[in-house]
Amino acid sequence: MNNKQKIYFFSQLQTDGDQHMVDILGGKGANIAEMCKLGLPVPPGFTLATSLCSDYLKKGTLTLTLKKNIKKNITKTEKMLGKSFGGKDPLLFSVRSGAPVSMPGMMETILNIGLTSQTIPHMIQRSGNSRFVYDSYRRLIMMYSDVVMEKALGLNKTNHSIREQMESLLKKTKKTRGYKNDSYMTSEDWKLLSDKYLSLFKKTFGVPFPDNHYDQLYGAVEAVFASWNGKRAKEYRAFEKIPSKMGTAVNIQAMVFGNLGPNCGTGVAFTRNPSTGENVFFGEWLPNAQGEDVVAGIRTPHPIIDDKKSKNSLFVAMPDAFKELNSVRKKLEKHYDDMQDIEFTIQDKKLWMLQTRKGKRTGIAAIKIATDMVEEKLISRKEAVRRVKPLQIYESLLKNIKPGELEKNLSVGFGLPAGPGASFGAVVFSAEKAEELGKKGKKIILVREETSPEDIHGMHYSEGILTSRGGLTSHAALVARGWGKSCIVGCQTLVIDKSLRFAMLGKEKIKEGDFLTLNGSTGEIFLGRLALFQNPIGSSGPLTDLLSWADKFRKLKIRTNADTPEDCEKALEFGAEGVGLCRTEHMFFDEKRVHDFRKMILSGSENERLNHLKRLLPYQTKDFYAILKKMDGLPVTVRLLDPPLHEFININQKELEVLATDLDLSLQEVEERVDILKESNPMLGHRGCRLGVSYPEITAMQAKAILGAAFKLKKEGYNPQVELMIPLVSHLNEFISQKNIIMNIYEDMKAKKNQTLSFKVGTMIEVPRACLVAENIAKNADFFSFGTNDLTQTTFGFSRDDTGSFFPHYFEKNIIEVDPFEQIDREGVGRLMSLAVKDARASKNRISIGICGEHGGDPNSIAFCKILGLDYVSCSPYRVPIARLAAAQVEL
Amino acid sequence: MNNKQKIYFFSQLQTDGDQHMVDILGGKGANIAEMCKLGLPVPPGFTLATSLCSDYLKKGTLTLTLKKNIKKNITKTEKMLGKSFGGKDPLLFSVRSGAPVSMPGMMETILNIGLTSQTIPHMIQRSGNSRFVYDSYRRLIMMYSDVVMEKALGLNKTNHSIREQMESLLKKTKKTRGYKNDSYMTSEDWKLLSDKYLSLFKKTFGVPFPDNHYDQLYGAVEAVFASWNGKRAKEYRAFEKIPSKMGTAVNIQAMVFGNLGPNCGTGVAFTRNPSTGENVFFGEWLPNAQGEDVVAGIRTPHPIIDDKKSKNSLFVAMPDAFKELNSVRKKLEKHYDDMQDIEFTIQDKKLWMLQTRKGKRTGIAAIKIATDMVEEKLISRKEAVRRVKPLQIYESLLKNIKPGELEKNLSVGFGLPAGPGASFGAVVFSAEKAEELGKKGKKIILVREETSPEDIHGMHYSEGILTSRGGLTSHAALVARGWGKSCIVGCQTLVIDKSLRFAMLGKEKIKEGDFLTLNGSTGEIFLGRLALFQNPIGSSGPLTDLLSWADKFRKLKIRTNADTPEDCEKALEFGAEGVGLCRTEHMFFDEKRVHDFRKMILSGSENERLNHLKRLLPYQTKDFYAILKKMDGLPVTVRLLDPPLHEFININQKELEVLATDLDLSLQEVEERVDILKESNPMLGHRGCRLGVSYPEITAMQAKAILGAAFKLKKEGYNPQVELMIPLVSHLNEFISQKNIIMNIYEDMKAKKNQTLSFKVGTMIEVPRACLVAENIAKNADFFSFGTNDLTQTTFGFSRDDTGSFFPHYFEKNIIEVDPFEQIDREGVGRLMSLAVKDARASKNRISIGICGEHGGDPNSIAFCKILGLDYVSCSPYRVPIARLAAAQVEL
Repeated sequence: MNNKQKIYFFSQLQTDGDQHMVDILGGKGANIAEMCKLGLPVPPGFTLATSLCSDYLKKGTLTLTLKKNIKKNITKTEKMLGKSFGGKDPLLFSVRSGAPVSMPGMMETILNIGLTSQTIPHMIQRSGNSRFVYDSYRRLIMMYSDVVMEKALGLNKTNHSIREQMESLLKKTKKTRGYKNDSYMTSEDWKLLSDKYLSLFKKTFGVPFPDNHYDQLYGAVEAVFASWNGKRAKEYRAFEKIPSKMGTAVNIQAMVFGNLGPNCGTGVAFTRNPSTGENVFFGEWLPNAQGEDVVAGIRTPHPIIDDKKSKNSLFVAMPDAFKELNSVRKKLEKHYDDMQDIEFTIQDKKLWMLQTRKGKRTGIAAIKIATDMVEEKLISRKEAVRRVKPLQIYESLLKNIKPGELEKNLSVGFGLPAGPGASFGAVVFSAEKAEELGKKGKKIILVREETSPEDIHGMHYSEGILTSRGGLTSHAALVARGWGKSCIVGCQTLVIDKSLRFAMLGKEKIKEGDFLTLNGSTGEIFLGRLALFQNPIGSSGPLTDLLSWADKFRKLKIRTNADTPEDCEKALEFGAEGVGLCRTEHMFFDEKRVHDFRKMILSGSENERLNHLKRLLPYQTKDFYAILKKMDGLPVTVRLLDPPLHEFININQKELEVLATDLDLSLQEVEERVDILKESNPMLGHRGCRLGVSYPEITAMQAKAILGAAFKLKKEGYNPQVELMIPLVSHLNEFISQKNIIMNIYEDMKAKKNQTLSFKVGTMIEVPRACLVAENIAKNADFFSFGTNDLTQTTFGFSRDDTGSFFPHYFEKNIIEVDPFEQIDREGVGRLMSLAVKDARASKNRISIGICGEHGGDPNSIAFCKILGLDYVSCSPYRVPIARLAAAQVEL
Repeated sequence: MNNKQKIYFFSQLQTDGDQHMVDILGGKGANIAEMCKLGLPVPPGFTLATSLCSDYLKKGTLTLTLKKNIKKNITKTEKMLGKSFGGKDPLLFSVRSGAPVSMPGMMETILNIGLTSQTIPHMIQRSGNSRFVYDSYRRLIMMYSDVVMEKALGLNKTNHSIREQMESLLKKTKKTRGYKNDSYMTSEDWKLLSDKYLSLFKKTFGVPFPDNHYDQLYGAVEAVFASWNGKRAKEYRAFEKIPSKMGTAVNIQAMVFGNLGPNCGTGVAFTRNPSTGENVFFGEWLPNAQGEDVVAGIRTPHPIIDDKKSKNSLFVAMPDAFKELNSVRKKLEKHYDDMQDIEFTIQDKKLWMLQTRKGKRTGIAAIKIATDMVEEKLISRKEAVRRVKPLQIYESLLKNIKPGELEKNLSVGFGLPAGPGASFGAVVFSAEKAEELGKKGKKIILVREETSPEDIHGMHYSEGILTSRGGLTSHAALVARGWGKSCIVGCQTLVIDKSLRFAMLGKEKIKEGDFLTLNGSTGEIFLGRLALFQNPIGSSGPLTDLLSWADKFRKLKIRTNADTPEDCEKALEFGAEGVGLCRTEHMFFDEKRVHDFRKMILSGSENERLNHLKRLLPYQTKDFYAILKKMDGLPVTVRLLDPPLHEFININQKELEVLATDLDLSLQEVEERVDILKESNPMLGHRGCRLGVSYPEITAMQAKAILGAAFKLKKEGYNPQVELMIPLVSHLNEFISQKNIIMNIYEDMKAKKNQTLSFKVGTMIEVPRACLVAENIAKNADFFSFGTNDLTQTTFGFSRDDTGSFFPHYFEKNIIEVDPFEQIDREGVGRLMSLAVKDARASKNRISIGICGEHGGDPNSIAFCKILGLDYVSCSPYRVPIARLAAAQVEL
């Protein structure tokens, strides 16, 4: 190892690195090194460490020292193989990027480096296969044009990518000659095509294709380094939350050839089925081909299965190579204790391993593989729990588009993937229409600019939701994820006509009733109905096993955010241990009740308000009764009315008129009252406990309903564990004023019913000031629940509904790397939380503290909650299994 | 002193309390005690301590022990005077409230306690004056009815107050008899009236008037205690920021009588003129009257002056009493070193002092008295600086309504007093109209629902501003105070018609062009033009003296918030030592520029934007040139563009059409672009440095303009001290991205001009997260400036524009006692600030830290800034003198 130069050599004979040096060698380089150490057949070569990438990006050029050291390692490889780079027995190299984390499709490869006008004749002579040599040469020119000249140097000023142009030249040749596919191309054809490529190269970039082997090599290395800061790579990193400072390594490796003739081939495989997790060898290969042909889809690859029926299978075509490959497969799985994704080439019947890495898998496969491996005694239960990603569990529960469909259909639009899972349905543009048709059993996709609580009823009846505005934590996104519905938001090419009869999606006109399919996991939108599938996971399958193991490890309790008995039921199925947030306002959006609620809001006096509240009381009592009964024995935290009142009266003229009649007011008066409720910044306006301070009678009614339901259940022999939560407290006095109302109601009921009830009164901690005065509040409160959505909004001064206009720039420019609404911002919001927990526990050691923001379902945030010493996290029902796993992983 | 019972006796012979025991005895009680100690003639009595008030309010009743101890002290008084309470030589008592802080008009008095069917005959016999006795008795019945029965017990269910009803009975009697005024009423008349009062009492309250002297006394004591929690008192406390826990004391004092005959009288006086501050005795008295007659305005009182011309003056009418009173006046001023407000009664030519307290005075008087007293060697310069309230300075600079006018005119509406000082003008309902007419020299009152930056130009041309919405820190209020304009906001009875042609103010229809007069100091609105006056304070008057003394004591620097050279000039006159906040956006609202600015905002590409920005550059450069020149040698902090862009395009259809033509877009396209800019919570939206991140070219243009102006001035021999301030930073990376743009522009300019420039780049700390990560930001910033307006909004989660709907309830219910937008909330916002200062100084010890929110002009907040260790405060020009004084007071 040349430590100073940070170049790591690898071969079957001598290898500097190993699998643990991922940060230095990148994933690919570390695994190549490891395979060498395992004695597997790997073509020799060397890896340029990731730190060289940063150096290069700073300097913008390869230093002379680095070039010297590359040469040294080339020489070493030459000696080992007895061939020479640019020489008479020409050695060719591949240059591949390899970052410390996998960035599929984001990384660059250039093969066949070293083919020049000088080496081509030698190569033909040595291989005796001029077709192969020109085929390889045209590949080199194309990859070099694409990766080095166009992407890294940005030299192509035409409207068509160089790759497209070159591919169309090949297509033209085949068409002229009448060839069905590439295999008909003759040596002469490839040579002519290479010449055409060379001309196109010169014309496009203004310089000739480099005819010196080292020029090719250095160009390729620079391009790989530069690719780290390419637009695609940066976007991918932003999306996947990968720090941009890590850089990529470069692997320079001697070429082996799968396209030298009929005894050659190349393939990719997974050591188990990555879709289902089944323990079968799963892959594809092509005879007489180079690696990229398998994935490019030009020729249809053959399966790699242990099956004699398929005559094209590797097992039949090259039994020895298959046998060796299968033993490599088992060796690798045993060594890595995990499913591997491998690449190989067979040159003249000899197997060469080019890559191994942890195989990507679906959620279902991840769970199946982990639990199978426990059974196979490959890994422990602890390891299984550690290994499955929490989000894979979520994914495993959702519908998806059948893989075949994606090949047949092109997406017509793209938005932010706000609610994973796929769905299709007939398009409607209003919540009313969605409800009307949904009730009739029609599958509906609700398409809106954005959604509001008024749309809830329609969203409920929709299969999927598509909006043109809003971000990953907009109202539509939150509701959809809560209900496990697929959802795409912020689709900027979507323009809904004001008639609500049609919309333009890019160039496509979408009319009401047209079918759309949404892939909420990727953000892709398709025309028509694509076939979907959903893997059923029973109550005794691998997921149940895995989660039951997880429960043994975790200490954090997992509650759910649920507003209805149905939500509660779902959450209990998923293993929730209580309700951490039951929002009472959603109950008012019910058609029957909202009218009374609106009348209450628009009342001119306390007396009028009391009258309307009286009518709402039995509804609310019934709601709470049902929820508390469903959650019998488990804690249920009910939040008192929170949203600004005007959210309830975003209504049309006709409804206003009805209200006016009912309230015995003129239309103008009603309009004026509605107008008064409008706010400049409703997020920071008259909501939360501020409503309860202004209208104590609302708090009183809700307390009556909640405690009344609990009293009734207790009398019936149930064990209700109710916790009343006062929202948006910023000052101790707000809390005390509301608590006093509740306690007065309780004392009244206790006296009237001659019965006691134990319950808790606590508060949401969701504005910075609440964190800052937590010590005082804690003295008076039974529990705290962090509302991290609002806390994040106010700590940053970011409105969740408005970040759409600047967050894209923030990610693009690396101002922030992770959306703080998805993952708790530990430095800022986290510091406030930590301060609050410390101060609160200082004044009341045993105070129960949880979190009920969206972050409660985010694994990273759950880990942070554990660090803070919280008692529980609460998340939407569909996230409960995720949280159970994540909470276990925190402990491991 | 009966310490256990907390009752304090006072008399010329023996006195338990003194003037320093204000917290225990209340202001009135402490000063009565002090007068006794000074040997002044005070009728004996005793004070119930304030703590007894809280006891009473908790228990709701007077304890037996307390009653026993009251009796003991009554006996002591009886013995001292040789009379007896309820006895044959009847002693009567007064019961008066007296809180630790002055609450004028809020407190209760009941006189003549002890007159019953038993004592009345004795009293007539002893005094030989039955007219006096029945006059006193009817007063007792009325005060008792009002204070005890109606206000404290709330027993009157009729629509008319008992006082009104009783007064109308008196009026009726006088009318029937043909009497001009009360002095014609005979003994028999008063007796008959007393009987009528007794019947009315019984009818109204369902019980007879108490005929036992102790029942009267205890009822009065309870009523005074209860009055502490009366609606008026609570509102007053909320308004004046008086803590509600302090409670009121009760003074029970032997009665002396000014209405026993022609040798009697009563009066109130100030030891100096409270309006002008002149050192002359200033007061009023009435012969043969009880105290309340002087203030009630039923009879016209006579002056108390050292003047022989007025035959009704006390000097002429009762020379001996005047002489004694004048010597008391001098004794009190010498003893208290301050102007006093006194009450006295003369009974049979003997002077009795009933009260002394620090006299309320106008701002002008406060300054004059303080500086005069320095000259008179009564107080030191330090004491003068300490004594004048900072807000009195502000008040002294403003216009006011002539006192006589207020007696002739009734207010027709009422709002929050948002900008003190008075103004009148013709009403207009749009900023355009205000500008149009204002330019022609017309005096204008701008009446709006609320104002926005778009209205600035119209506000500039208005004398006063009246809005129906918004609170004390709404846009209208901030701008008005900044410019020293009178302003009333949140006038809830104001409804502006959509035609913008008229408005309803309660029942009054106000048409465009009608005249209104605003009293921005009280919130009162009057129809028509009331006469105003303004006391000129020259550059060498008492204010100048006082402030120059203050400057010697203070250490905090005082800067100003100024956006124009005119603001700067005003602020320099007022003593500003730099500009702490120069808002650049106001410059764009200029008619000529706003169109270009709008085109920039609505540009479809960076290139278009660059073009429009290029046209704006010379304007901005000119602006900064003028400001930096005016402030030569003093620091000028320029804040980069801050408000959400849509604030600039709140425009009408016609303007939209012009924009569409200019931008070569369809009207629909322009509307769509405008629509996209709309936000749910603009306060937390795309603004501040977020704009600079999205559109770096805006930051670049502004940097070019600011630095360009400074370069030019430096070349011309000036000494520009410019500081560029990046707004709304929540994350270090935001700051760095903007700083980099500025530094790149600087490097470019430096190279081109071959000239260097020293300047600073810092940030506003105005969201909680900035405080939490201050340590990191400080490493990279040259200065911090707390934007406490926004910091308060985000720390509490209160939108300044929306607090109008719930703050009234908050004050009423004592949730918060002080508006956090007026005075820094030390517990919450202050803790964040303190954390930020500590962390910032830990990473960069000498970093300059100031404050530029509205709090910079609030004395209490200035004191807090001193505690935090800030370097400067910045406030609007008119507040600079206030800040100079407040900053000096902090040090004293």
